Amino acid sequence: MGSLEKKFLRLGAEYAPGQEVRQDTNEVGLRFEKIPGTPVDFSHGDVDAFEPIPGSLDVFNEGVRLGGKQAYTEYRGSIDIRENVAKKLSTFTGSTINADQNFIITPGTQGALFLAMGSTISRGDKVAIVVPDYFANRKLVEFFEGEVVPVQLDYYKNDTLAGLDLTQLEDAFKAGVKLFLFSNPNNPTGVIYSKDEIRDIAKLAQQYGATVIVDELYSRQIFEGRTYTHLCAQNIVDPENVITIMGPSKTESLSGYRLGVAFGSSKIIDRMEKLQAIVSLRAGGYSQAVLKSWFSEPEGWMTERIAQHQAIRDDLVAKLRAADGFQVRATEAGSYLFPRIPKLDISITEFVKVLRLQAGVIVTPGTEFGPQFTESFRVNFSQDHRAAVDAIGRVIQVVEAYRNEYAK
Amino acid sequence: MGSLEKKFLRLGAEYAPGQEVRQDTNEVGLRFEKIPGTPVDFSHGDVDAFEPIPGSLDVFNEGVRLGGKQAYTEYRGSIDIRENVAKKLSTFTGSTINADQNFIITPGTQGALFLAMGSTISRGDKVAIVVPDYFANRKLVEFFEGEVVPVQLDYYKNDTLAGLDLTQLEDAFKAGVKLFLFSNPNNPTGVIYSKDEIRDIAKLAQQYGATVIVDELYSRQIFEGRTYTHLCAQNIVDPENVITIMGPSKTESLSGYRLGVAFGSSKIIDRMEKLQAIVSLRAGGYSQAVLKSWFSEPEGWMTERIAQHQAIRDDLVAKLRAADGFQVRATEAGSYLFPRIPKLDISITEFVKVLRLQAGVIVTPGTEFGPQFTESFRVNFSQDHRAAVDAIGRVIQVVEAYRNEYAK
Repeated sequence: MGSLEKKFLRLGAEYAPGQEVRQDTNEVGLRFEKIPGTPVDFSHGDVDAFEPIPGSLDVFNEGVRLGGKQAYTEYRGSIDIRENVAKKLSTFTGSTINADQNFIITPGTQGALFLAMGSTISRGDKVAIVVPDYFANRKLVEFFEGEVVPVQLDYYKNDTLAGLDLTQLEDAFKAGVKLFLFSNPNNPTGVIYSKDEIRDIAKLAQQYGATVIVDELYSRQIFEGRTYTHLCAQNIVDPENVITIMGPSKTESLSGYRLGVAFGSSKIIDRMEKLQAIVSLRAGGYSQAVLKSWFSEPEGWMTERIAQHQAIRDDLVAKLRAADGFQVRATEAGSYLFPRIPKLDISITEFVKVLRLQAGVIVTPGTEFGPQFTESFRVNFSQDHRAAVDAIGRVIQVVEAYRNEYAK
Repeated sequence: MGSLEKKFLRLGAEYAPGQEVRQDTNEVGLRFEKIPGTPVDFSHGDVDAFEPIPGSLDVFNEGVRLGGKQAYTEYRGSIDIRENVAKKLSTFTGSTINADQNFIITPGTQGALFLAMGSTISRGDKVAIVVPDYFANRKLVEFFEGEVVPVQLDYYKNDTLAGLDLTQLEDAFKAGVKLFLFSNPNNPTGVIYSKDEIRDIAKLAQQYGATVIVDELYSRQIFEGRTYTHLCAQNIVDPENVITIMGPSKTESLSGYRLGVAFGSSKIIDRMEKLQAIVSLRAGGYSQAVLKSWFSEPEGWMTERIAQHQAIRDDLVAKLRAADGFQVRATEAGSYLFPRIPKLDISITEFVKVLRLQAGVIVTPGTEFGPQFTESFRVNFSQDHRAAVDAIGRVIQVVEAYRNEYAK
């Protein structure tokens, strides 16, 4: 097998969220008739149930009316929009972001991640990533021919912290890791790193001269007023060694516009722009205008959105905890739950296919987030409240039907 | 210097079209006062002078109203849109494109190029590209750590063909090249490959088992009813070894939506989708809807647009040919001219800066398209007609002022 073939085999997207229609389901054995109910696609948020920021389409249309100026921006994005957003993000994070030097607009946070990783990984570099974490992190390291050094997150350990194994992280740095990537809040578990954890990560990175990329995609949707700590605002790591990534695709439901941002190290931002020049030139020019509506939502809109998501979370967590053999840590921020299920007769990827065919419910298998999560799945509960609760009921039914009798 | 630093040095985007505002101009010596006149940015088309396809924004807005279905498509794009466009492109190219297996929607044709190259180049692979050709081609090969094998295009040789050196191409294949990338119409010269040239390229590729990527971005804007030959429709190369790239960013002025497509080899399209999953997930969901307006323009709209561009071309070519020491081949398709200018006292990159500061005219230096083009520049003449003609007059004035006296 050629090296390119191997590379793309590792990039497999069959179980990635949103690709379910491309799955081969010929081999799946169903144990009963389809359970009726409103289909729910937990692989991503439902932007029909939670609509985009009010007025965002109007801002897009204004961008189109601006014409060529908005269509052809610098590769790093329109300077007007960068100034608008850098200012709002400086306030939000408690850091100072220079719109000209330290800021880039990207096609989604996926775009920001790709550009940041492509700008910092050389072939053969050791790169530390958290397990579990966003499913593309591993693929990105592998695509750029880095070597993945996993650092475990024991998210069932203690409710007051995320549970990162700091000894493992330090060992990774000692072994030569120069880049650490993690999401906070963590995807897929929805846990927040404590202030101490963030500061410890920062101290280790600074001690070993490592670069840190922090994916803060869900950092606005914080439940119960928990403390959220921005690593970039701690002034511990050399600012030229930190990149922070955010975007309005999740809580704000603007995914259809493909918008993300990255800010921090001017050197890395410069590289990201050069890379963007050959990847896709720029984030869609007209879409960039939509960022004006971000962090400028109508008063009370974000508070209400958070409250609605917290209510869904409460119902799903209660239902999952009441089911026999399930374990789940309650989401602290964002819209993900990552329940552990009892042992089944089928693999987790088979379970995901069965669930889709038999119950009209799409979830993402735990193995997308780390090879050991063979008994977990992820749901994005940004869904119609009632439909989500009913769908979780069907998940529990399917688990019960495929449960391994001997393991009970 | 680290290998990553070297890699990004080669990716330099300072002289790339659209990045002029980031140029360092402290060192530029000006010989006279600024020449008055409407500023013209010839680095890309002016979508205010030539507006997007009528109704395209309405189609976008309909896409937004579709909601989640349009926001979250498969990574390769919405199946409805793929079916719509694959059908139209099958007719246009005279080939058969299966929307499910052989088609992907990308963020711009730049996105399609990046994905196609990333899906076909292994480290160390020899890749043949044409000189001159689109400035990102070389950068893409280098980014994926391929080895560039240049094949010369002698575009001043003969008006009945593009002028590709087929012997050099065969030598490249003999030397182990397994991938050949070229644009037709050629960017930056605007020449079309003759039917014989296309068939000869195809025969050589088939003989040596090579893959061909054809960038047909400008293939709709053909002047004087010239014959245009789609390589994919010749049935010479194994269809699994051909990828064709198109998009509505140029003639159709839809660049602000960031849309492109690639079609052909199902194996390469599969890889491109896997790569897209980690690069930016998908072309902007709502933007994808805009492809419905592509190849469905109001009757007569495209004919009129071509006629308007041909008229601008005629005036610019006449003016350039009348100027002392200039040489230019008339554009056969698309909106580019690539004139050769007389010897100057300053380098072509200095000339480009002087031109911007002294005459309010932006052009792209020839060296972006090949190191030997130190006495050429590219203009995209999709501009306001009168402003473009005036601006070319100023270009001629600046050339005269900086002309090397000894070389006259």
